[in-house]
Amino acid sequence: MRLSRYFLPVLKEDPKEAQIVSHRYMLRAGMIKQQSAGIYSWLPLGLRVLNRIQQIVNEEQIRAGHVPVLMPTLQSADLWRESGRYDAYGPEMLRIKDRHDREMLYGPTNEEMITDMFRAHVSSYKSLPLTLYQIQWKFRDEMRPRFGVMRGREFLMKDGYNFDLTKEDALHAYNRHMVSYLRTYERMGLTAIPMRADSGPIGGEDTHEFLVLAQTGESEVFYDARVTELKLGDRSVDYDNREEVKAVCDEFTTLYARTDETHDEGIFAEVPEEHRRVARGIEVGQIFYFGTKYSEAMGATVVSPEGKQIPVEMGSHGIGVSRLIGAIIEASHDDKGIIWPEGVTPFPVGIVNLKQGDAATDAACDALYKGLAAKGLEALYDDRDERAGAKFATMDLIGLPWRITVGPRGLANGVVEVTSRRTGLSEEMSAEAAIAKIAAIYENI
Amino acid sequence: MRLSRYFLPVLKEDPKEAQIVSHRYMLRAGMIKQQSAGIYSWLPLGLRVLNRIQQIVNEEQIRAGHVPVLMPTLQSADLWRESGRYDAYGPEMLRIKDRHDREMLYGPTNEEMITDMFRAHVSSYKSLPLTLYQIQWKFRDEMRPRFGVMRGREFLMKDGYNFDLTKEDALHAYNRHMVSYLRTYERMGLTAIPMRADSGPIGGEDTHEFLVLAQTGESEVFYDARVTELKLGDRSVDYDNREEVKAVCDEFTTLYARTDETHDEGIFAEVPEEHRRVARGIEVGQIFYFGTKYSEAMGATVVSPEGKQIPVEMGSHGIGVSRLIGAIIEASHDDKGIIWPEGVTPFPVGIVNLKQGDAATDAACDALYKGLAAKGLEALYDDRDERAGAKFATMDLIGLPWRITVGPRGLANGVVEVTSRRTGLSEEMSAEAAIAKIAAIYENI
Repeated sequence: MRLSRYFLPVLKEDPKEAQIVSHRYMLRAGMIKQQSAGIYSWLPLGLRVLNRIQQIVNEEQIRAGHVPVLMPTLQSADLWRESGRYDAYGPEMLRIKDRHDREMLYGPTNEEMITDMFRAHVSSYKSLPLTLYQIQWKFRDEMRPRFGVMRGREFLMKDGYNFDLTKEDALHAYNRHMVSYLRTYERMGLTAIPMRADSGPIGGEDTHEFLVLAQTGESEVFYDARVTELKLGDRSVDYDNREEVKAVCDEFTTLYARTDETHDEGIFAEVPEEHRRVARGIEVGQIFYFGTKYSEAMGATVVSPEGKQIPVEMGSHGIGVSRLIGAIIEASHDDKGIIWPEGVTPFPVGIVNLKQGDAATDAACDALYKGLAAKGLEALYDDRDERAGAKFATMDLIGLPWRITVGPRGLANGVVEVTSRRTGLSEEMSAEAAIAKIAAIYENI
Repeated sequence: MRLSRYFLPVLKEDPKEAQIVSHRYMLRAGMIKQQSAGIYSWLPLGLRVLNRIQQIVNEEQIRAGHVPVLMPTLQSADLWRESGRYDAYGPEMLRIKDRHDREMLYGPTNEEMITDMFRAHVSSYKSLPLTLYQIQWKFRDEMRPRFGVMRGREFLMKDGYNFDLTKEDALHAYNRHMVSYLRTYERMGLTAIPMRADSGPIGGEDTHEFLVLAQTGESEVFYDARVTELKLGDRSVDYDNREEVKAVCDEFTTLYARTDETHDEGIFAEVPEEHRRVARGIEVGQIFYFGTKYSEAMGATVVSPEGKQIPVEMGSHGIGVSRLIGAIIEASHDDKGIIWPEGVTPFPVGIVNLKQGDAATDAACDALYKGLAAKGLEALYDDRDERAGAKFATMDLIGLPWRITVGPRGLANGVVEVTSRRTGLSEEMSAEAAIAKIAAIYENI
């Protein structure tokens, strides 16, 4: 993408309304624009990150054997009356009347609708196990929306729902989701710790939240420091193998890690003092096992192998897709701007032309741009007629992990400069070597 | 995808509520489920087609140099008061109050919001030309929703908006959209004819609708039959070349083709009688040039090269993404079910195992499945323990353009059977040849 043909409205000043760094940088880097309180437009750069996050979530859901669907944003109030949640849900639910005065709502979550979809179409245990998921916009009418996409009202969320014959099967689905989430977050460059939590309005007893440690987090968290060193890495996990999946869950949930809702001072005191940590965290996902809460209320039953009608065992599982962008920035930035992990960066690399309009420099940049494209890497090429300082400041602010700088002096020596956003270190090399280096970095991402 | 692990709830009976063939087949093939009047969930098979259509739309927009953004579904009423449309828009607009009693609406279109985004960030002619587009859910509270996704209330639409310095530039943007739309529809296997139309609540004088001919179409259309023979084909068009783009538009819009809104009996009478046609059409897109209607009302100006503040010239351009699925089915089906064009099919090919459980047949199907996957083709493999007749009926209903049938008798002769859904013709060949044949069909799609 050539910057001269793109829409990247970066701001020089810090917006007054932004209290936390992710909100500030998302506005300054031209990623989002507020349209109403807690409601944002996604500008081109922000949308690229949002799409990249969706892609990772989708890939890991498919890998775990889950099947994508897409439910509408508006739901009928009657469906929520069946579960009893229409009256129980507070003012965060946006209630709407259509032109025929029918009561609707903008879905804050989809347990009722997915249960309705299930009961309409599935009647035998032979169709189980089944996990359906979607990535769709949701709405929660927060009293005081703030912190940009971290606590917005209209937000993008992945929500998945498992349907199983037995509690044992449903707990395997729970574990399978935990492992798939661990891999999802790691691919985004995040350390997200599964913590015992409270189930809130979803219901059920078993639930873990995934938290990214950050000073700006809304939750107080208590954990054993050794839990932050655990990594799934690139080990392969067979999602059909219950023991293997459970072993991974045990590895990640044995050390103490709880939110304030479930924190227990007595058990925490048993953690060796040098490992005991109290900090703040950003919730980026949550998984639930709630058994037959919705299937009983809504009559979602299957015929068992013994010929009996039994309600299905269920759980639900969410990832805050739009909120994740805020969490990633909170976890990865410096005073010049964002530092994107390679897994989610809007562009893999930026090209800075130090002498726009100079025939040789322009030609070298063009060749570099095409060479990267031939490797499947779309660079963001700053081809504007701007000073080098302004170009560097923009690149630092928007946080592409790699930058290639091309100028007449380097070209005279047959080199360009490759710079890491994270370390700030630069290396000179031929354009061919630069392309090969960037391609190698992204080969397995 | 193995059917035993998928969610494909096909119906044997024709649903009573479905009056037209696309609605009937989308329900029967397990593509959608109605959740409220005119509001649908997308089941896995339907979602795959929806995603495929979005991919084609995106690719052709990017090819034309347009830049993707994403706006929220909910908008502030105040924004629509600026253009005067909040009061002018009828009961099709879904009006909402949030918990603080602020007036909101579920966007039926986005001219106001995109103009707001533009005025907030662009101030100089140097940023022009600029075309921004999105694919997002919209809501129109139809009095009587019907015909499935063809006249739904919550629907997915691509809407794009061009910002230009002069009327001449804006008309080039209009032409560029026309050509990109022609290519978009052709890639979906559709003949969509640009017809002179009426601009309705969007406003402006220049507008074309794109219509797919179908008996169930809601519009009466009048055209010269020779217009249906025009094809863009695989000619390359340089979207920056105004003359080249205009020549394509002239080619497609010179022959008579109008909706009833703009039909002129006098001019129509000049079409040679043997070419004169009156038929019905489904609207699948529309492009508008409306000049400064919104930019003047909302103060979206730029500084011109002469240093003057002038309102930008604009147009907007829509494709009915979810509705297209209905239109494609109306245009391509038979009495057994859907016949997907290769460009939009949910799976490129189906595999039918005639003797599930037979070790040799199962192994041959597995090898075929993996061989296709190695070519980047995800087959839908019917590995259920069902009669051959039921498997064939399902494949015919869901309409994958190619089917490979594997049974013990063929395997004894070293062959499988490759069948075209469109012609019904079958050919026997080795599994390797079948893979090569299917791969060749999809090579340029």
